Amino acid sequence: MIVSALLTSVGINTALCVLFFTCYSILRKQPSNYKVYVPRLLAEGISKRKKRFNLERLIPSPDWVAKAWTLSEEELFSLAGLDGVVFIRTITFCLKIFTFAGIIGILVLLPVNCWANQMQEFDVTDFADNSLDVFTISNINSGSNWLWVHFCAVYIVTGFICLLLHHEYKYIASKRISHFHSSKPQPHQFTILVRSIPTSSSCSVSESVESFFKEFYPSTYLSHVVIRHTSKIRSLLEARAAFVFFKSRYGAATASHMQLSVNPTQWITEPVPEPRDVYWPFFFESFMRRWISKLLAIVATTFFTISFLIPVVIVQGLVNLNQLEVLFPSLTSILTIKFVTQIITGYLPSLILQLFLKVVPPVMRLISSIQGYISNSNIEISACNKVLSCTIWNVFLATVFSGSVLTQLSLILDLKSIPWKLAVSVPAQASFFITYVVTQGWTSVLSELFRIIPLICSLISKPFTSPEHEIDVPSIPYHRDVPRVLFFGLLGITYFFLAPLILPFLLAYFCLAYIIYRNQFINVYAPKYETAGKYWPIVHNTMIFSLVLMQVIAMGSFALKKLKPASAWMLPLPVLTLLFNEYCRKRFLPVFIAYSVERIYKQVKTKIPLLTEELLLNVAMHQDKKTKSFEREDGEQEKTKRI
Amino acid sequence: MIVSALLTSVGINTALCVLFFTCYSILRKQPSNYKVYVPRLLAEGISKRKKRFNLERLIPSPDWVAKAWTLSEEELFSLAGLDGVVFIRTITFCLKIFTFAGIIGILVLLPVNCWANQMQEFDVTDFADNSLDVFTISNINSGSNWLWVHFCAVYIVTGFICLLLHHEYKYIASKRISHFHSSKPQPHQFTILVRSIPTSSSCSVSESVESFFKEFYPSTYLSHVVIRHTSKIRSLLEARAAFVFFKSRYGAATASHMQLSVNPTQWITEPVPEPRDVYWPFFFESFMRRWISKLLAIVATTFFTISFLIPVVIVQGLVNLNQLEVLFPSLTSILTIKFVTQIITGYLPSLILQLFLKVVPPVMRLISSIQGYISNSNIEISACNKVLSCTIWNVFLATVFSGSVLTQLSLILDLKSIPWKLAVSVPAQASFFITYVVTQGWTSVLSELFRIIPLICSLISKPFTSPEHEIDVPSIPYHRDVPRVLFFGLLGITYFFLAPLILPFLLAYFCLAYIIYRNQFINVYAPKYETAGKYWPIVHNTMIFSLVLMQVIAMGSFALKKLKPASAWMLPLPVLTLLFNEYCRKRFLPVFIAYSVERIYKQVKTKIPLLTEELLLNVAMHQDKKTKSFEREDGEQEKTKRI
Repeated sequence: MIVSALLTSVGINTALCVLFFTCYSILRKQPSNYKVYVPRLLAEGISKRKKRFNLERLIPSPDWVAKAWTLSEEELFSLAGLDGVVFIRTITFCLKIFTFAGIIGILVLLPVNCWANQMQEFDVTDFADNSLDVFTISNINSGSNWLWVHFCAVYIVTGFICLLLHHEYKYIASKRISHFHSSKPQPHQFTILVRSIPTSSSCSVSESVESFFKEFYPSTYLSHVVIRHTSKIRSLLEARAAFVFFKSRYGAATASHMQLSVNPTQWITEPVPEPRDVYWPFFFESFMRRWISKLLAIVATTFFTISFLIPVVIVQGLVNLNQLEVLFPSLTSILTIKFVTQIITGYLPSLILQLFLKVVPPVMRLISSIQGYISNSNIEISACNKVLSCTIWNVFLATVFSGSVLTQLSLILDLKSIPWKLAVSVPAQASFFITYVVTQGWTSVLSELFRIIPLICSLISKPFTSPEHEIDVPSIPYHRDVPRVLFFGLLGITYFFLAPLILPFLLAYFCLAYIIYRNQFINVYAPKYETAGKYWPIVHNTMIFSLVLMQVIAMGSFALKKLKPASAWMLPLPVLTLLFNEYCRKRFLPVFIAYSVERIYKQVKTKIPLLTEELLLNVAMHQDKKTKSFEREDGEQEKTKRI
Repeated sequence: MIVSALLTSVGINTALCVLFFTCYSILRKQPSNYKVYVPRLLAEGISKRKKRFNLERLIPSPDWVAKAWTLSEEELFSLAGLDGVVFIRTITFCLKIFTFAGIIGILVLLPVNCWANQMQEFDVTDFADNSLDVFTISNINSGSNWLWVHFCAVYIVTGFICLLLHHEYKYIASKRISHFHSSKPQPHQFTILVRSIPTSSSCSVSESVESFFKEFYPSTYLSHVVIRHTSKIRSLLEARAAFVFFKSRYGAATASHMQLSVNPTQWITEPVPEPRDVYWPFFFESFMRRWISKLLAIVATTFFTISFLIPVVIVQGLVNLNQLEVLFPSLTSILTIKFVTQIITGYLPSLILQLFLKVVPPVMRLISSIQGYISNSNIEISACNKVLSCTIWNVFLATVFSGSVLTQLSLILDLKSIPWKLAVSVPAQASFFITYVVTQGWTSVLSELFRIIPLICSLISKPFTSPEHEIDVPSIPYHRDVPRVLFFGLLGITYFFLAPLILPFLLAYFCLAYIIYRNQFINVYAPKYETAGKYWPIVHNTMIFSLVLMQVIAMGSFALKKLKPASAWMLPLPVLTLLFNEYCRKRFLPVFIAYSVERIYKQVKTKIPLLTEELLLNVAMHQDKKTKSFEREDGEQEKTKRI
């Protein structure tokens, strides 16, 4: 690829950005589009549906950019919860590291690549005709000592990223603790869910639960409700699961931490999610069914991830002109036009890949939901991990190695040649990924702003809905957006020393994302449930993975460029990075898994909870909304309240 | 290797066995050897030192075999604790599986190997001149359908072993629970050790501990003692660790299970070992020092394991005759004798390897001890794992691949060619490992019976010790003996379908081990501390590893023999085996990690403990025996009592 081609692509996409921004600035002012662009404000009653027309509505104005820019973290926290803060901090984290890497990359590495020991002359007089390879590490001669500059850059940037990772982990952990500290005690924190309750012919599940907890938790046990299936077929089964309420949060925390039964597959406890976060349809009461469903989910994810490219490749194979002409004879005349042919053969396969990629988040969410989680937030966290690995595998590795599934697998299995193969293949794809950032990155974030699908849906459904129809405020699908942002982070980290030219475009992407997502948090999304920052460990792990991948590629690159000492001295870096990760796992991760005794107690002291049994029962009833009903512990069955 | 050579080796070793048994039967009756052969009985006062000579003492008698044979499991339990029971059950477990595999191997696989599609004729007329390869899978033609017999055998034996593993895990878990149930409540169960106590200038460690536990465990906290360093240099430091005593075992268990502090690297808790089990020298009070020492231990173990063969190879290289002749010119005449030359070149290298292998258990124990464990039992468990992996790596893999360290590493790193390479190399070493079982296996267990080193030590030290000198009853070094037994189990499982001829010799080994170790438990060893069956998960994991290794070799063998369908249908077996292992981890492993609430409570109910603060302090004092002293929580420092 030559510079002029890249500039063309950048020009077209910049123009598209301006166009989208202008259109958005106008469209968002139209009252008919309020449901699409400001549903949150509408629902909160801040934006009124203005019926009267005025000219101002047709003039684009950038005030929303200023509003999104000036939003403070406290305001963001109140709008989007801790998860929103973590998401925006992920973007600012990337902005910080790529600004730092960008300064080193553009001011130091790029000139070295262009002018030091060049294999290909950098033609200053005709800038646009230079190949993009001139700007990459490929341009440096084998054995050149200029590679030590890259070596130092890798060490410095790794150090900077690790420092920043430590700072962020510490900050978000403290935010999470203070969030818990400042929030009111919630009834669900006093409750645990118990599964696999052993039964006998002599006593019912309810009696069994009561006698068990009265015996072992006499001072903290309050009451319980047994979960019952309400669907017709299942209604005959008496379910072996129950909610157990405690007098203190400490009691509930203790019971959910300890192994209750001598048999570890019985009396399995877990904390109860918030009522609004509950997801019942795949609730399994037995240990075995839950374990099997988890195994099935792992198999399904692996199968889907590995075989994801197969349909894409087949469809790409079908899209050749001869077959199209056979299928649609009427198209023959059009297909002879050169421009149309180029579009179909060049653009369609990539479009199909993009469409298939759009399918990944919902499919992964579906797989996670049948895995047996009882809360939406856990399902989304699990789906987020799955989407992330699927994207890295299918976009990064498939592009880099561009082979069949089996070729990829055999590459992965031969561990010792991985650095070498990566070093050969990754730099070769530099220009592809630079254009990928410009085309896919910029447009994905603009389409987020423009909300094309909701806009089309709204236009189609307008004739059939009354204007005063209830407004549906969506929640941001983190399992779609977190992996997307992190994937661009991975691209930036792996390519910063190979092809520093990628960094300005990535910075532009993260700037766009920063403004647009903050705007969406103000106007569009409202959190339905929250994980209180549990996405950060995923961000942290992905950054560590990206760093190690980059270091392995660096090791291979220096070996390939016949600078053996640099390759050997690169070896301590992944070890140190993994040790740093291990330290962070010990120091910060426990905060994201469970709350400490100190914290649970301290909070109780500041605000004494007023919890009645009735209130707790309400929680259970609310959680029961979809498929379950409850039995009071006295055996009297109650009708399900719909709250 | 030909059959006659094997028969010679077996003949010599059988004769050695008879000789050792006879010598032992006589020597054990000599009062001067009581300290070596019956120290346990001597210490318990059951065997009196008879001074009077009688003729019976010179006649070998097999009564000790009968005694060892008839020992019941209850008696064994009372003699050697649950660990002894687990050790003997490991041997009987191997006896059971190799009897089953032996029946299939000798009655089905061996005839198939000898007569079906033979490449090499099995010469019935001159049995002794047949090569041992006639009895192995190598003798079967490529593509022969007789290989399906081996295929079925692999499936059947895997199923049998898994069934038996499940049964044993269940039995030992129940034994562990009932052992806990029937034993008296021990003061150390009411105690936890707290490290990394945060201090401030305003309050001392003692005040800090008291205020923390009085605040968060008001109902169960009893008292505490702060740990102090007594060595001269360290005495100025005030250590940030303490014993905390609770009113109930449940209180102690809760505190040691929950994360106490908001900062996960502070207020780190762990259960306290039995006083007799405590090991102080490498006690680290801070999180970081403990973590670093653990990392150093991992590095040291890896380095030792990988580079273990280097000195052996160097020494083997030195042992060539020319160099010896240069070093010791006087030996020239002796070295020209053919027999001496054969001994030096053939036997010496293997002897050196064996001597180096003897060094492994103490070295690994040393590494484990500096890792920061505070109990001997944990050190031994950790050392057991290290010795096991070192043995498998250096004896099995080094023999099979017989290459340098780097060759071995590169083999391991190329994952996809492992089955193929194993299938080529493992059957080639069949005759080596058959003789290994006969020579090393049988002699190792006989030397255990004969206790050569203690015997020599006793003979040397006799003139300098008074006859009434205190008797030192040793405890069995499980970290040396468990890996040894398990390694022979691994050999049996991997070779049973490749070379079924190994099985009779293995059965003989396990029969010897069964009798001899039971005898040693009666006469020699007394447990100093115990893990209450924690060695069983190691046994289980090694068996699963052996099974998967065997299945991978089978997969490679069938592919090598050009029976692709058999190779492909072998694929589900390791997956199923690993799933079975995962199930067992969930079902049984928690029992070996912590005691459940149900069990802790039930035991309290059956026997109400009479614990005074004084008694608890005694525990702490006892644990302090070696390097620490204590400060009462009122700040008054006490002298260390020696109990």
